[in-house]
Amino acid sequence: MTPPKLRIFCDAPSSASALAILKEGTAPHELVFPWRTAESVLVRTEPDPALGTADIAFGQPDVAGVLKSERLRWIHLTSAGYTRYDTPEFRAFAKSRGLLVTSSSAVYAEACAEHVFAFMLAQARRLPQGLQTRCASGSPQWIQLRESSALLQKQRAVILGFGAIAARLVELLAPFEMEVIAMRRKPRGDERIPIVTPEHLRQAFATADHVISILPDNANSIHFISTERLGWMKPGAIFYNIGRGTTVDQQALFESLRSGHLGAAWLDVTDPEPLPDDHPLWTASNCYITPHTAGGHHNESETLVHHFLENLNRFLGDLPLRDRIM
Amino acid sequence: MTPPKLRIFCDAPSSASALAILKEGTAPHELVFPWRTAESVLVRTEPDPALGTADIAFGQPDVAGVLKSERLRWIHLTSAGYTRYDTPEFRAFAKSRGLLVTSSSAVYAEACAEHVFAFMLAQARRLPQGLQTRCASGSPQWIQLRESSALLQKQRAVILGFGAIAARLVELLAPFEMEVIAMRRKPRGDERIPIVTPEHLRQAFATADHVISILPDNANSIHFISTERLGWMKPGAIFYNIGRGTTVDQQALFESLRSGHLGAAWLDVTDPEPLPDDHPLWTASNCYITPHTAGGHHNESETLVHHFLENLNRFLGDLPLRDRIM
Repeated sequence: MTPPKLRIFCDAPSSASALAILKEGTAPHELVFPWRTAESVLVRTEPDPALGTADIAFGQPDVAGVLKSERLRWIHLTSAGYTRYDTPEFRAFAKSRGLLVTSSSAVYAEACAEHVFAFMLAQARRLPQGLQTRCASGSPQWIQLRESSALLQKQRAVILGFGAIAARLVELLAPFEMEVIAMRRKPRGDERIPIVTPEHLRQAFATADHVISILPDNANSIHFISTERLGWMKPGAIFYNIGRGTTVDQQALFESLRSGHLGAAWLDVTDPEPLPDDHPLWTASNCYITPHTAGGHHNESETLVHHFLENLNRFLGDLPLRDRIM
Repeated sequence: MTPPKLRIFCDAPSSASALAILKEGTAPHELVFPWRTAESVLVRTEPDPALGTADIAFGQPDVAGVLKSERLRWIHLTSAGYTRYDTPEFRAFAKSRGLLVTSSSAVYAEACAEHVFAFMLAQARRLPQGLQTRCASGSPQWIQLRESSALLQKQRAVILGFGAIAARLVELLAPFEMEVIAMRRKPRGDERIPIVTPEHLRQAFATADHVISILPDNANSIHFISTERLGWMKPGAIFYNIGRGTTVDQQALFESLRSGHLGAAWLDVTDPEPLPDDHPLWTASNCYITPHTAGGHHNESETLVHHFLENLNRFLGDLPLRDRIM
């Protein structure tokens, strides 16, 4: 007896080549598509009746639709974050129904880690300043630029939030002989670097040259970077955010940058995105913002499909799924 | 019997703190200073009669003065490059007199390696483009930016010139699982990565995503990056130069950038420095130039003094000198 065909609802935005890989990799199972595909993995999709007929969903399925579904057994999200699914109601539904939920965090870990690492090196080597000047060797501006340039080697960093991105960043930083510690609410003991809980952050911040936030958006993390915690950071420290914009009190961040307490901030995420044109952070010369592109990379939709197909094989083989969140 | 006091001529530009370290570290020997200290380690110093009375010179001593000196036994240069000393006449003089010549290449290796690494990551993550836009998630510009972003992971790089900087760069790149090979005229066998000679460069260029030049300025390297060799590079390859500006045919580089053959160029060195305001490379949107700041870092003059003092102890103890070039 052949196993029954599964219906896989897919609202992941995809290139033609990614779609071809998906079709080939999911055969003989049936792919069903919504009326309208989202432009981005970050955009909430429209409710779609096809979701109600599916066994598996791949993309960003509408929460209300999931809660009404009777057949869904597994959802594979195309994002690393999963704020809109991270509610008591959704978790209770998933638990009661044995619904598995996985994310694509492995797909974004490399790109996000490289992105924040690019921020750190661009800041250390003063690329924004160096690329804008035509100063001559020996000039006062040149001497100032060279003397303000820094080395990452042997500096200290604190990472807020420890998951796939942080683990990869720690690997990338290894040759720099830095002192790296991470904050995690529930240390697991397998992190390979020293871990502190939020209660012990003040001491860690006091000596850190770099504070890197990879915090997700949830009830605990809203405005985690507050006036008080910014005050704990050492004068001249650099703050980076590739987590979610809501985790930062942006007015407090602006004040800290304006006063010269923080040396600089490098943000890939803000709240909202993009910031309105009259937002004060646009006026801070030591604030650098990219438009939520940290996870992006060419062939992204192919990589997402490959990651889903790998998990589909595990699902069909009753093996533990990668990047499981529920 | 106490050993005789040595006279150490020092024309290295120094901060007050570096000078204090130098004075303490060289006692009981005698420091002699020129009339005028150079503003930069890259600037040729004026002839100075004090050089003629010294046993050791630390800085960038005037070549004619060295050739007239009768007491000099060791010159420790404050730069990594040593073009103005690299002549048959100078080498013959050094050899005939047993004059030792060392450079400060170890001091600049870390900063230069971090600088070119910052270039590589800024290019991969499209920082110049990302920092200039306020585009929204899902917009065509945002999709284009994410899709044009790249990962260094598993890419291929060719390094031209293998010395202290290249060796450090190879260490920094290790976590990225890249294929890195280097070109060296005389392979020594201790490089830990595959080495090719210039005759085999064409094949290496054909598949390289990154070509990184750390070539010094000498008779063999003038316009090494020529129209022909640029043509060997794979379409879309990125070229980096932290060696010397004279090693590049800048008109050929401009043509390659303008035609879209090269993806981008990141230069810390040009010929001359800075380029004149009407130079075509300023008009290439995919050419990024920093003003010869790759080696710079705060506490640079202290690091230079520490490196000199370490070598001074070796000199006094008859041990092999670090960074010896003649």
